[in-house]
Amino acid sequence: MDPLEYHRKHQGKLRVEGTVSIDSLEDLGLAYTPGVAEPARAIADDAEKSYEYTAKGKMVGVVSNGSAVLGLGDIGAAAAAPVMEGKALLIHELAGVSAFPLLIDEQDPDAFIEAAARLHPGFGFFLLEDIASPDCFRIEDALKERLDIPVFHDDQHGAAVAVLAGVKNALDVVGKDMTEVSIALVGAGAAGTAATKLLMEAGVEDITVVDRSGILAPGMDLLPHHRELADLTNPDGQQGDLADAMQDADVFIGLSTSGIVSQEMVRSMAEDPVVFAMANPDPEIPYPDARDAGAAVVGTGRSDFPNQINNSLAFPGIVRGALTCRAREVNTEMQLAAADAIAAQVDEPSPDQVVPSSLDPDLHDAVADAVRNRGGETGACRV
Amino acid sequence: MDPLEYHRKHQGKLRVEGTVSIDSLEDLGLAYTPGVAEPARAIADDAEKSYEYTAKGKMVGVVSNGSAVLGLGDIGAAAAAPVMEGKALLIHELAGVSAFPLLIDEQDPDAFIEAAARLHPGFGFFLLEDIASPDCFRIEDALKERLDIPVFHDDQHGAAVAVLAGVKNALDVVGKDMTEVSIALVGAGAAGTAATKLLMEAGVEDITVVDRSGILAPGMDLLPHHRELADLTNPDGQQGDLADAMQDADVFIGLSTSGIVSQEMVRSMAEDPVVFAMANPDPEIPYPDARDAGAAVVGTGRSDFPNQINNSLAFPGIVRGALTCRAREVNTEMQLAAADAIAAQVDEPSPDQVVPSSLDPDLHDAVADAVRNRGGETGACRV
Repeated sequence: MDPLEYHRKHQGKLRVEGTVSIDSLEDLGLAYTPGVAEPARAIADDAEKSYEYTAKGKMVGVVSNGSAVLGLGDIGAAAAAPVMEGKALLIHELAGVSAFPLLIDEQDPDAFIEAAARLHPGFGFFLLEDIASPDCFRIEDALKERLDIPVFHDDQHGAAVAVLAGVKNALDVVGKDMTEVSIALVGAGAAGTAATKLLMEAGVEDITVVDRSGILAPGMDLLPHHRELADLTNPDGQQGDLADAMQDADVFIGLSTSGIVSQEMVRSMAEDPVVFAMANPDPEIPYPDARDAGAAVVGTGRSDFPNQINNSLAFPGIVRGALTCRAREVNTEMQLAAADAIAAQVDEPSPDQVVPSSLDPDLHDAVADAVRNRGGETGACRV
Repeated sequence: MDPLEYHRKHQGKLRVEGTVSIDSLEDLGLAYTPGVAEPARAIADDAEKSYEYTAKGKMVGVVSNGSAVLGLGDIGAAAAAPVMEGKALLIHELAGVSAFPLLIDEQDPDAFIEAAARLHPGFGFFLLEDIASPDCFRIEDALKERLDIPVFHDDQHGAAVAVLAGVKNALDVVGKDMTEVSIALVGAGAAGTAATKLLMEAGVEDITVVDRSGILAPGMDLLPHHRELADLTNPDGQQGDLADAMQDADVFIGLSTSGIVSQEMVRSMAEDPVVFAMANPDPEIPYPDARDAGAAVVGTGRSDFPNQINNSLAFPGIVRGALTCRAREVNTEMQLAAADAIAAQVDEPSPDQVVPSSLDPDLHDAVADAVRNRGGETGACRV
């Protein structure tokens, strides 16, 4: 079906339903006045009761200003609605909880923070979506600081968790160790930044980040968030371009733009190289080309090749796990646990399968359990 | 069932559902990427397309900061959640459209306006709820000015429309004319202010408003919104208290607090007086007492006596009518048309029935039609 016709036919993809129905005056008296007075008073006395008496504990806010919509750029909040409705629908279908788009018509990050922060009472989880880098970092940090519900920028951390899960199993396939490999990562935006940091938390010591200006290195004139990455990474102080970074690397991680990696660059990598080319909609190097050039494991963001490495592996379980334990945050430990759970969902990793399918229902259960358990151990949970 | 148990059992009263389901990769490709690109681009080119391709045109935002929750006062946004979920549920059940609570944790009216205004992209209608007077006037005015969707403070205008409908039929019962009656109205808050103005738009010339300080009259030291009411009303410049205002009045309208009207005050009214005592949960004078004192028609806000005069007579049809025609506003003409439609729903008004039941499904259809038609005639509608 034509996508415009599909969206017109359904007039959007979401509707709000009651968990109860009103068939009598007695129902009305419970669901509305005077029945609402008791739970309202209980919450006024103890805000945590919101999780018991309202939809908060099963409601995700999908928060966006549409400033960096996949493939479309800065189209604004109204135009981002089909994307955010789709994301809310995915959360519903994959995580079994409710989600509602909060389309905030504001491009200034500070004003955006002010507007978003005030919306916390109705939601147990804020999933930030499609907010441009570098504003996304400041927005996430400020909202995390101000709110006592998880604030999770999926383009950063959902992607990072999925990448880490894939890298774990890919290294298992090629028999290399996380702490010993050399990784070249291209794309120092939201996903690349978070993936770099999470890989390092998981034990990676040698990672080099490449952006349009080349390898991020000390001494370069960089934006603040790139400066931070340059200081964290590139232990040898290497300078140069993407081809230089990829030479002798064990793992390539692409979170940038299509077609920037050649077969020659793959051939210059270390033995049994792992190539994750996740640019959307077309990867940094096509799957068959990377395989032909000798990559031992190849992953992309596409569903029409093996190893689709996508944040939909991660966010459904993370969201459900965090809501289930009424989490205040999704900390790094919980993200690492999510990556482990995704990786463990593949019984025997092989070149053709380093990650499970995001349509596998067991996957999201396993991730939710891991996130809730680790959240409990790290003090992130209310229950 | 115990209201706390009821709310706990259902963990809130709302959930978000898909209008579509995702059962295959093809579904996913339509509902999410890449299918969302086309509608997103179409909306970026023409914002009005939001009504076609997203849920905007069937989605009501129930906007509140919980600063004046019925019977509970200023309990804040989080504690207002059970009330707002109940209101959203009522909209769903009675109007057949979706509604979602926007609980804004902000008591400063200017900051509240800033936060609420930015949320317009996802909604075709903002129903303001339970916001304290006089802030509610400024908030509604500012949001109406800034947004091109209807902004309708239900505590003001929903109540006003219901009152006007009841007054129309009650005057029919007692054989008096709107333009000739004298009305005493007590309670110069949100509902009382809007009811006064709408009654005057409908032809009432002689109306006197009473607040805690007595009859609002020129020369008194009044708050700005009371000053405005004093200037509009009280054509004879009467001074005094509620008992003075009610003497010889044809109609009493109570939108204040319980028990402030005596039988003696009812007996002091003109022949065949109409008494609408709508304080919640207990009226200004009990229904039986008002009847015993000679009132020809008595209405209250309660469901256990005849003539329940409640904004649920008005808002479902108003919301649906406005959404159906993609209205930019709900102007005064549309409110007058809604009141006419409610009144006309009673075939033969009698002392025991001056308004229909809000559970009558035909009522909301009739109101929606009237609102849409009048909206079209007055240029308020997009389609």
